[in-house]
Amino acid sequence: MDPEFIDTLVIPNDTKIVFLIMDGLGGLPMDGRDQTELEAARTPNLDQLARKSVCGLLDPIGYGVTPGSGPAHFALFGYDPIKNNIGRGILEAAGIDFPMTERDLLIRLNFATIDKNGVVVDRRAGRIDNETNKRICRKLQDSIKKLSDVEVIFEPVREHRALLALRGGDLREEIQETDPQKTGLPFLPPDALVPEAEGTATLLKELVDKAREVLSDEAKANMLLLRGYSRYRRYPSLKERFGLNALAIANYPMYRGIARLLGMVIGPLPQTIEEEFKALSEHYREYDFFFVHVKPTDSRGEDGNFEAKVKVIEEVDALVPLVTDLNPDVLVVTGDHSTPAALASHSWHPLPVILYSTTCRPDRVERFSERDCVYGGIGRMPMVHLMGLALAHARRLEKFGA
Amino acid sequence: MDPEFIDTLVIPNDTKIVFLIMDGLGGLPMDGRDQTELEAARTPNLDQLARKSVCGLLDPIGYGVTPGSGPAHFALFGYDPIKNNIGRGILEAAGIDFPMTERDLLIRLNFATIDKNGVVVDRRAGRIDNETNKRICRKLQDSIKKLSDVEVIFEPVREHRALLALRGGDLREEIQETDPQKTGLPFLPPDALVPEAEGTATLLKELVDKAREVLSDEAKANMLLLRGYSRYRRYPSLKERFGLNALAIANYPMYRGIARLLGMVIGPLPQTIEEEFKALSEHYREYDFFFVHVKPTDSRGEDGNFEAKVKVIEEVDALVPLVTDLNPDVLVVTGDHSTPAALASHSWHPLPVILYSTTCRPDRVERFSERDCVYGGIGRMPMVHLMGLALAHARRLEKFGA
Repeated sequence: MDPEFIDTLVIPNDTKIVFLIMDGLGGLPMDGRDQTELEAARTPNLDQLARKSVCGLLDPIGYGVTPGSGPAHFALFGYDPIKNNIGRGILEAAGIDFPMTERDLLIRLNFATIDKNGVVVDRRAGRIDNETNKRICRKLQDSIKKLSDVEVIFEPVREHRALLALRGGDLREEIQETDPQKTGLPFLPPDALVPEAEGTATLLKELVDKAREVLSDEAKANMLLLRGYSRYRRYPSLKERFGLNALAIANYPMYRGIARLLGMVIGPLPQTIEEEFKALSEHYREYDFFFVHVKPTDSRGEDGNFEAKVKVIEEVDALVPLVTDLNPDVLVVTGDHSTPAALASHSWHPLPVILYSTTCRPDRVERFSERDCVYGGIGRMPMVHLMGLALAHARRLEKFGA
Repeated sequence: MDPEFIDTLVIPNDTKIVFLIMDGLGGLPMDGRDQTELEAARTPNLDQLARKSVCGLLDPIGYGVTPGSGPAHFALFGYDPIKNNIGRGILEAAGIDFPMTERDLLIRLNFATIDKNGVVVDRRAGRIDNETNKRICRKLQDSIKKLSDVEVIFEPVREHRALLALRGGDLREEIQETDPQKTGLPFLPPDALVPEAEGTATLLKELVDKAREVLSDEAKANMLLLRGYSRYRRYPSLKERFGLNALAIANYPMYRGIARLLGMVIGPLPQTIEEEFKALSEHYREYDFFFVHVKPTDSRGEDGNFEAKVKVIEEVDALVPLVTDLNPDVLVVTGDHSTPAALASHSWHPLPVILYSTTCRPDRVERFSERDCVYGGIGRMPMVHLMGLALAHARRLEKFGA
């Protein structure tokens, strides 16, 4: 079924849906253990919830595919992650929660070191620190504000990475990347790859020349390299597709940025997981869809720290009553992808999911774990269909056909 | 997910993948037994492997579809079996391991008996024996070597069946089959079905006339009937799609032919199952993907011989340590389709599968059987996605999206 088919069935209701997302939740056994992180964690509240719910396993993209955070979250919210593959420039902008507009061309920018002949000697400018990055972006911004009638915006990201946004005009993304990908080679010109991109290429060449001049007195970051040109693309919002007034509670910029791309309201910046749960309670009356994003499960997985990931899961479990006490009509607990500490990276393994509602059909799952969710009533499902299931249980989809 | 999507994620690695394929593995209980062939078999090695692996059930084509060997193997190797449905002429050519070229039109040819008015009285020429078939093919080949500048090749298959290959020129497959499908009717002319096929039709009419003359002194096989015209189609190889240097170890011509179509190197001709396993060890250093094809599980199923199929499975089980001792990064054990002895034919039932690797997430399957694999972590999966899963576990796919 095309994931957009459910859009045709949406009806209004005042029910509330909560998505509690532990980033990188899925795991693997490690170092001779028999259990995954979730299996090793003591999770009485989630286990109790699982017993009242329908459980299963979700594939973020498809069998064997390891997702980045962008595609995984698109799938989570019911957007086909392959068809809607988000460009690197947009993701970089989302990653610093940059307020994009429909007139933007978004470009990832790396500061680099070149010699006097334009040969790249360090593609990361010695990994300059964040303060230097900010100073250099300000310096560039002071010198380059506009190119003909196109607004130019420099935004630091971190270390040697920044965002360049061109705003206005008929900007195109079919431009050659200027990073030669290897040191010892000269930087490349931002040439047009199709005739329609000639205008954009001319602007970018002018920009590159000016920037080189502005940066000429820098010891390390004396050049910029352009990559991942992405024309801003407007995605239909959760309001437009599903009639949902959505609030995102997340403390990492990238997830706030992705939520913003999908038209969610971005909540206050919580500092701890507990603050995220409290923000949910505080704003519960105002919205009908809540995306609560817990980052440290993924971070500890990426660190390869099994025990620390277990602890984060236990911390979340202890807070679960704060959500269940709100009596949401639908409560989903899952992740966006697996990040097993054993691999210290994202992986392709499916994710366990709990879907609680008063209309879910009970299965025999007694415990929230990867191994138990194999036996869940949802079975193994592409993640992109989770939103449809949540909407159905929230009585927000009408019957199809007479 | 389109099965070809994984092609975009392939990265090089030096890991090794073994596909141990027991043709027609899936079964059914028979004659009042409660167990399938696999369940009845004593398989300590496969059971031990299953406990360390992730298991599941595979649908070769889709729910309820009984596959032929061609589509089943295409699915096994990650090729959409419906989109890539292999023509009958090509399959016939693959079945005798005929070295096809891109200039070939491949046609299945049946010898038949006609009366003096051209009416078909026996569509199988009394099922002439293989020796007669060979003699007749040689006789035709001696008389018909070329038609204008198109090379003509006759190759015996068995009984009344042969292969006709036309090589060269702009040959088309839109030609009427000449088999009237019923006795008592005259054979049909190989007419063009589209104007572009007129040239090919003219050649084939000339060929049919000559063949009728050459065969006029034969008692039974005094005519040939043409069916299943297939223009050779080149498939992207496993090397091109997945970067795999693949070796096929199979002793039946059709499977060697299919492997050849997908660019695999064809190993030496083993005479026994044990010889197949030994060939795997001998060539293990030279390749990174191994297709080991065990035919007798299917043959005994087709015979309706439950006990004999059980014995073949037990014979394979006893040899499994020869594979596991090689420590492949990924070891898949499954079949291409089910051939229950109870039905004495291929069937639509899903197939049990074991996927072993150090990165597989454990499930609760303790025994390799159809019934146990229902509870496996893979769940029930279209077979075409098996290759993607194997590549992921072999760390041969990169992350999708940032």
